[in-house]
Amino acid sequence: MIQPGADGAERRLTADLEAAAKIGAVPAGGVSRFAWTPALAQATAWVSSELERLGMTVGIDAAGNMIAKWPAPAGEAVMVASHLDTVPQGGAFDGALGVLAGVEAIRRLRDEAFQPVRPIWIGSFMDEEGTRFGTSMFGSRAFCGEDLSEELGASDRGGTTVREAMATQGFTADRIGEADQVASVGCYLELHIEQGPVLSSQGRRLGLVEAISGVVGLRVTLEGEANHAGTTPMNMRRDPLVAAARIVLALRERSAAQSGLLATVGRIEVAPGGRNVIPGSCQFTVDLRPRDPETFATLESWTAEVVAEAATTEGVQASVETEYALAPTTMDGALMAALEAAAADEQVAPLRMTSGSGHDAMIIGRHARAAMLFVPSHQGISHSPREWTDPEDCELGARVLAGALRRLARD
Amino acid sequence: MIQPGADGAERRLTADLEAAAKIGAVPAGGVSRFAWTPALAQATAWVSSELERLGMTVGIDAAGNMIAKWPAPAGEAVMVASHLDTVPQGGAFDGALGVLAGVEAIRRLRDEAFQPVRPIWIGSFMDEEGTRFGTSMFGSRAFCGEDLSEELGASDRGGTTVREAMATQGFTADRIGEADQVASVGCYLELHIEQGPVLSSQGRRLGLVEAISGVVGLRVTLEGEANHAGTTPMNMRRDPLVAAARIVLALRERSAAQSGLLATVGRIEVAPGGRNVIPGSCQFTVDLRPRDPETFATLESWTAEVVAEAATTEGVQASVETEYALAPTTMDGALMAALEAAAADEQVAPLRMTSGSGHDAMIIGRHARAAMLFVPSHQGISHSPREWTDPEDCELGARVLAGALRRLARD
Repeated sequence: MIQPGADGAERRLTADLEAAAKIGAVPAGGVSRFAWTPALAQATAWVSSELERLGMTVGIDAAGNMIAKWPAPAGEAVMVASHLDTVPQGGAFDGALGVLAGVEAIRRLRDEAFQPVRPIWIGSFMDEEGTRFGTSMFGSRAFCGEDLSEELGASDRGGTTVREAMATQGFTADRIGEADQVASVGCYLELHIEQGPVLSSQGRRLGLVEAISGVVGLRVTLEGEANHAGTTPMNMRRDPLVAAARIVLALRERSAAQSGLLATVGRIEVAPGGRNVIPGSCQFTVDLRPRDPETFATLESWTAEVVAEAATTEGVQASVETEYALAPTTMDGALMAALEAAAADEQVAPLRMTSGSGHDAMIIGRHARAAMLFVPSHQGISHSPREWTDPEDCELGARVLAGALRRLARD
Repeated sequence: MIQPGADGAERRLTADLEAAAKIGAVPAGGVSRFAWTPALAQATAWVSSELERLGMTVGIDAAGNMIAKWPAPAGEAVMVASHLDTVPQGGAFDGALGVLAGVEAIRRLRDEAFQPVRPIWIGSFMDEEGTRFGTSMFGSRAFCGEDLSEELGASDRGGTTVREAMATQGFTADRIGEADQVASVGCYLELHIEQGPVLSSQGRRLGLVEAISGVVGLRVTLEGEANHAGTTPMNMRRDPLVAAARIVLALRERSAAQSGLLATVGRIEVAPGGRNVIPGSCQFTVDLRPRDPETFATLESWTAEVVAEAATTEGVQASVETEYALAPTTMDGALMAALEAAAADEQVAPLRMTSGSGHDAMIIGRHARAAMLFVPSHQGISHSPREWTDPEDCELGARVLAGALRRLARD
């Protein structure tokens, strides 16, 4: 709901989002701002200057994160952050909204001469997307003191390493440990577009994230026996695609029955791939998104059992390789309550939901209390120039952030 | 069972098979004799000279078929044939056995001074495999007067058409209608390797074909909606791969339950194919081999129903395209009885079975009474240099052919 009497203040955030989308804009559509490039540096510098104008002390840390601080007498900081980097030809909202809504929240607090008891920090983390080097969450991981020595050696398509790319922007990779500041953060808030269809399809304006799903990436390989489709009796076949079909349906069945789990087979290949040849082998990926730690803990073994059962039924050999496994992050109840209270001030009840996409809050949430607020993505579209969130929803999100900061930085 | 007292006669066929395998032998293994090539012409000429030596009148017809005739006072011919062309790096038995066993049967009948009442014909059909031009069963179809005008325009990988290739071998494509001689054939016998695992796995030496399966080739296309694997709730997905899995299992279930039907999905692709992206589309082939005409008649509509049901369940759009549909050919009871009686003379009871692979007998069987005899393929392997049938089984097959000819050409 747009506040009655909404004035110019309502349109500041929209103007900022539009301005940011011009930095790194691609002629074919969308925005490309990648890690350690001039476009991302330019966007970061622009936001920094806005925050300095608002009286904050802005620094760029050793990992390229922008951290703006509003000092206060005591205690751990209340931090609001997201990221300014994008996917190739990304939208104007993914990441940028979270940073610019933080700027807008500060404006509101300044306008009302708010005096924080605890420090307020606004952040923009380096390389959340991992577009260029595959090093996603680089900045927030450095901020949390995680070991990034492997990531520093990762290369982009042109052969440039992260270490080298950092140097071109005046950073020294070996000093990355200095970015570890999470211990000074008491709680963390992040506003983000949903990047899914739930809010828009239900006509809801805000989502309150209860948990950021874990993600388990598996690769399943099934080996049977290639044979003539016309001469091999059904009972003498060892067909890995039939086993794969059983596994696809078992994954679907469980994820449909369990609300806190998504399961996707996005890639599948059979060999030799002749239309009159029974496949000899089949390989496919499994993407699992468990909401709660209990499900996460048993998911790999459960999948291995499902695969083994299907393999036995069809007489094929199976192997399951875990390519990655990240645990779910549960959001903090008190911070969720603060966001809910701030939303209630706006006469909006947020929908409690799970975030299936990863965010910097997932990293910070392992080290500090964290919570996330979602605004709707039109038709669930994201990572596309067609990504869209209504200005009214963006501005609502910023007001709720400001309301939560008021509560959390004063109590 | 090898006849007691087996002498040199037992080894003539084996020697012939070995000699034929040298014509078109590939250094890397196997034999390559393709339509309208010197290698195939050389093999055909060699067999022709063997049959002329046995007193037969040999001609090459307008379609490149070799037809050797043993004239007799009256009636329609009893024909034994198969083919001398091969797949790339094919085995020594597929096709060649059927022709050379015919030669061996003639030797046996000559040795015993047999006097046929009906003519006996031995044939080798041009281009059964269709390796070079995709024009399989070319010769037998021409022999049956089928329209091959489209086939004459087909090209090989080098751009040479059938018409041009025929000219290089001294044939005139426009005269192909002259090959139509099937009306002179009363009955047709073909000995072939099984090209499947049934006989060898059951330790049987002979198979009596009851029917040559039809074959229906379908292409199924499912269109759903590509979406983010982490943010799209299970109940909001339109996942074509899940629908495909349902179809694969429905095909498996029916074909496992119905003895006269084989079903294979040999090729499957999903797009866009990202591991964290729900597939937007899925395309796969279906190969169906119905044994009886009743099943054949309803198979396309049944599959369309199965596809439609899965598509509805998963909320995807489906289309099914029939790429080819050939009806099953039922073998002739009286000819089967003649083969069985000849086998009984050898103390062997043939296993009644269905041929899932196509053969020239499938074409001839639409125009004349036809029957087929199978000998075992080791491990079911065919279309490979590793194709193997024991010499004793080949020779048994030739003796049974001779026994059937004795019965059919005299009565």
